[in-house]
Amino acid sequence: MNLALIGLGTVNRGLLELLLEKRDSLLKEYGFAPLVTAISDPIVGSVFSEKGINIEEILSLLMKENNIKNYSDGIKGWNSEKTIKESNADTIVEAIPTNLETGEPGLSILRTALNDKKNVVTTNKGSIVLAYRELKNLAEENGVFLRFEGTVLSGTPVISLVESTFKGIEIKEVRGIMNGTANYILTKMEIGFSYEEALKRAKKKGIAEEQPEADIKGWDSAAKIVIIANVLMGGDLKFKEVSIKGIDTVTEKDIVKALAERKHWKLIAAAKKTEDKIIASVAPEILSDQDPLSKITGSINAINFTTDILGNIMVSGPGAGKRETGYALLSDLLYINEKKKR
Amino acid sequence: MNLALIGLGTVNRGLLELLLEKRDSLLKEYGFAPLVTAISDPIVGSVFSEKGINIEEILSLLMKENNIKNYSDGIKGWNSEKTIKESNADTIVEAIPTNLETGEPGLSILRTALNDKKNVVTTNKGSIVLAYRELKNLAEENGVFLRFEGTVLSGTPVISLVESTFKGIEIKEVRGIMNGTANYILTKMEIGFSYEEALKRAKKKGIAEEQPEADIKGWDSAAKIVIIANVLMGGDLKFKEVSIKGIDTVTEKDIVKALAERKHWKLIAAAKKTEDKIIASVAPEILSDQDPLSKITGSINAINFTTDILGNIMVSGPGAGKRETGYALLSDLLYINEKKKR
Repeated sequence: MNLALIGLGTVNRGLLELLLEKRDSLLKEYGFAPLVTAISDPIVGSVFSEKGINIEEILSLLMKENNIKNYSDGIKGWNSEKTIKESNADTIVEAIPTNLETGEPGLSILRTALNDKKNVVTTNKGSIVLAYRELKNLAEENGVFLRFEGTVLSGTPVISLVESTFKGIEIKEVRGIMNGTANYILTKMEIGFSYEEALKRAKKKGIAEEQPEADIKGWDSAAKIVIIANVLMGGDLKFKEVSIKGIDTVTEKDIVKALAERKHWKLIAAAKKTEDKIIASVAPEILSDQDPLSKITGSINAINFTTDILGNIMVSGPGAGKRETGYALLSDLLYINEKKKR
Repeated sequence: MNLALIGLGTVNRGLLELLLEKRDSLLKEYGFAPLVTAISDPIVGSVFSEKGINIEEILSLLMKENNIKNYSDGIKGWNSEKTIKESNADTIVEAIPTNLETGEPGLSILRTALNDKKNVVTTNKGSIVLAYRELKNLAEENGVFLRFEGTVLSGTPVISLVESTFKGIEIKEVRGIMNGTANYILTKMEIGFSYEEALKRAKKKGIAEEQPEADIKGWDSAAKIVIIANVLMGGDLKFKEVSIKGIDTVTEKDIVKALAERKHWKLIAAAKKTEDKIIASVAPEILSDQDPLSKITGSINAINFTTDILGNIMVSGPGAGKRETGYALLSDLLYINEKKKR
């Protein structure tokens, strides 16, 4: 498998680190030995090298110079389109910043790649939220794979969990804590931090982004519930149909009052099947101390699936992180590697 | 796929109900339309019908007469060995009572089936605890599948979860609540039931068996941790190497005392990789109110996996039940159906 990495931010750096660290075991256990033949990033630089890029050198350059312009080999300067069309990569790994309104530039990159018969793996929510059906059809028409595990809870299995282990099961309802920043802030506020202090701490720890609006206002959770509804529950839900309320509506007083009754505020994203459609919402809720979701603290995420055969199945794990989101990409690549071999 | 059901107790009845209920969707979504061509049970009776047994009639006979001796067609009276060897089934579904000391008669049934080049799906822990490596090798030598999801948490995915969604991940440690009867009793004791009352209630609700010794004394949890250690963590652990303490060592006084400190007694099964082996134990532990496992109540089970890439991933769901364990068999059959098609 020849990979072209579009974007070389935290997530694709996480993937490169894992490819290096797990090189021996991936080859031994899964016969998986991908070559990274192209990297394209508008800021840190672009390289194409037909016979494969040296990952150690790239990571070392990033560490020392925070760009890859001095990479010792290959053709430099290709943009994403040229990289997709002219490199020898068969699989495009797209991990650039998300835009929930237009999906761009990710959406165009994905369309170009699929039309050019390249497999796509991505962690970028925007395109999947806005155009899942179109992209899925495009992948099918072109006989390639489209995978996006990392758009939900980073590396914590959600899409692959349902696809692989819920066969024959119908999901009737989903409820979860799907945003690590919001949950971290609410958790810190319970031990006495003000909202501002908690947010500052989250930024310092690398949990919250510099512009945390999408996390705080519930948009990020809403994007995730749209993906779950459409991909795992057979829905056709639009982002604007989700009723959204963020944690900025919860005051320190609210939190103290709930705690006194041993209750906990959590930002809950939910989707429920009704007769003819899926109804979805994101809102802060007061959970009883007995609710397992009330014990999901800090930047951990969790999703509870209400099913027809198994009742409630809950999964929890990290919802963000360099290594964790890099792993989501790796797991998608391993999926394609396995299916291709058939 | 032609199935022979060995044992027609609760679990295989659950499977039959699901095959009936999900007939249309299994065919439509997975192209899966198995025929049950043989059933063999020493108590309720045996039938072999080359062209397929009518599931509705079997379930109706069980309801009315609690045996299948008056089934309207086929050859009657075959024992398990004759059924495996002489029926036209390619897949054996074994769900008979577990024996953790000898594995019998399940172990002999599995050996016969695998040697006769039949796929095996089972929910019977004994054989897998005692002879996993032997049976796995036997399946490989004979080019057939051996699947046993239902030996851990009934239908809650554990083996398939790790196989399908933890690719490239190393599990360093596992901790969980793996016995519904023990957890139900501890939960009821927290709200004031005596041990005897709680056990009586568990029996009445069909959670505990008439002979609940294996649940109470921790043997059932120990069997599960052996399977997890050997199948999912690459170990070679023997049942007798597990340090085992049951919930019969926890008094009502212990529980009240812990509750006063907002702590909870849980029967924890654990396995941890060390340099050269896996160390495993089953014992009641006092968990803090902050531990997510402390909120797993009643007959629900949960397992926390500590991994190298994703930190902690927890899954919870039912650990027993007719429908739930029947689904474990169905999920194994769907796995074989998918792999066979390759």
